[in-house]
Amino acid sequence: MNITEILKERAELVEAELLKYVSDTDPEFGVIFDAMRYSLLAGGKRLRPFLVLEFARLAAIENGGDADNAEKGALPYACAIEMIHTYSLIHDDLPCMDNDDLRRGMPTSHKKFGEANALLAGDALLTKAFETASSNLLVSDKTNCMAVNLLARCAGAIGMIGGQVLDLEGEKQKFGMDTLERLQSLKTGELIRCAALLGCYAGGASESLIVSAEKYALGLGRAFQVVDDILDVIGDEAVLGKPIGSDADSGKTTFATIMTIDEARDYAMRLTDMAIDAVGGCEGAETLIELAKYLLSRNK
Amino acid sequence: MNITEILKERAELVEAELLKYVSDTDPEFGVIFDAMRYSLLAGGKRLRPFLVLEFARLAAIENGGDADNAEKGALPYACAIEMIHTYSLIHDDLPCMDNDDLRRGMPTSHKKFGEANALLAGDALLTKAFETASSNLLVSDKTNCMAVNLLARCAGAIGMIGGQVLDLEGEKQKFGMDTLERLQSLKTGELIRCAALLGCYAGGASESLIVSAEKYALGLGRAFQVVDDILDVIGDEAVLGKPIGSDADSGKTTFATIMTIDEARDYAMRLTDMAIDAVGGCEGAETLIELAKYLLSRNK
Repeated sequence: MNITEILKERAELVEAELLKYVSDTDPEFGVIFDAMRYSLLAGGKRLRPFLVLEFARLAAIENGGDADNAEKGALPYACAIEMIHTYSLIHDDLPCMDNDDLRRGMPTSHKKFGEANALLAGDALLTKAFETASSNLLVSDKTNCMAVNLLARCAGAIGMIGGQVLDLEGEKQKFGMDTLERLQSLKTGELIRCAALLGCYAGGASESLIVSAEKYALGLGRAFQVVDDILDVIGDEAVLGKPIGSDADSGKTTFATIMTIDEARDYAMRLTDMAIDAVGGCEGAETLIELAKYLLSRNK
Repeated sequence: MNITEILKERAELVEAELLKYVSDTDPEFGVIFDAMRYSLLAGGKRLRPFLVLEFARLAAIENGGDADNAEKGALPYACAIEMIHTYSLIHDDLPCMDNDDLRRGMPTSHKKFGEANALLAGDALLTKAFETASSNLLVSDKTNCMAVNLLARCAGAIGMIGGQVLDLEGEKQKFGMDTLERLQSLKTGELIRCAALLGCYAGGASESLIVSAEKYALGLGRAFQVVDDILDVIGDEAVLGKPIGSDADSGKTTFATIMTIDEARDYAMRLTDMAIDAVGGCEGAETLIELAKYLLSRNK
């Protein structure tokens, strides 16, 4: 299988599992589960769950364990992190935040269900993530506590939410490379780092694999953001499923405004190399290496 | 000490502990922590933390253990549940929900910090609650997992958030006693039940104490709501710190619209008796009994 096929297969596995967590159809709670399902199952690359599962496999291979088993044990964490990612998108799209009407070519949650239900669906997904991670029966209680704690720190006020706060403040002014990197390392980087570490935890990784995972996640996460910013300038709207130029229109500082497109491409390449180097010495890392290359060359 | 003194002492203990969790003053994250602190330390009865601590004491007494130690071990859970309660108030006050400008006589979070920061402060407090509960070092990992899971279920889509969804739908129509009780048992009851159970978990309570705790919480939580609804009709605005008649103005169905004030008072008394009976056979339950009586007779 090539990397796009592997990504697709994993995404289907994760989506089937996600559905189980939000399949309540009791009419009493109908709207909230409709809204949770709508956003949670609206597609996307499922990049964070992929990293969880792949690092669990890597940890198992390192331990001489069964990679498929490790992947299964990591699946609840993969779902939990996708719930958190999805909640953050719902809340980000709200009128008081980015005020977006469309996401992946579909009406955003508040456009479809109203603002109050969108707010609550986001809250419910965030809450469900911790329910899911705390009751993973395939790993130890200690590992679940570590997973919940890591998720909360990476998603919280000095993690992803902290990044959103910086982002809101940044809208009021131009800023430089250091601030942009800091903002992105919090807003998107922390959850990608979290994904890699959750896989390590689930698979019982060594300290040395954990260090490699963090380096990989840092390079991959930053490269991902740089490519996103490039695509917002030169992407194909039909392929992307969203209008290009939205960053420029809103006067946002991005990697594509702070440097030329060629410089940004070069930077994304160096970050990708950094990610690849980080796992170069790990047995079974071929898929992670292919993933990094694929994300660099993607057109959506 | 009488019950108001005990309540005050416990509230101070909890507030000192809460402050530690949100004391970050790094200017980088300044606004979000300011907003978290503002709402978390804005006073209130600290009823939920009180129940956590008191049931932990009861469980210790049942076990022949040290009640003070058990209370200490329950303190992180007491803080976690107050963070969740506070986040729910911040989000409830937002323009797309109840659109309230004042809470406890102070500007609501979005009035003070803007909508986006209020949204994020709520998200951050919810997230912080799980970070806090998962890293309680004074109990076992198993207990922490149980606590996180319980908090998430009671606060989630088939708990508190489910109650908020019903409440939003209820605004569009009049409804009867069954629906009102169901709505309140979710919207406020589940978190009060959660508080009692968290104390039981932290203190290592027996199954029989857990059953008593749930019954107590059911009676107390419902009586609390009935008294709230009565005070909204006949309370003293100066004492309450908020305008009365707001439920009637918004056409809401409450225990005070569905029955006469005398009937509601009688109902609150019966619910209080139910709570008292539930813990009547437990050693050391005097404080819980006094609490139930106090909440029935309160004027704010």
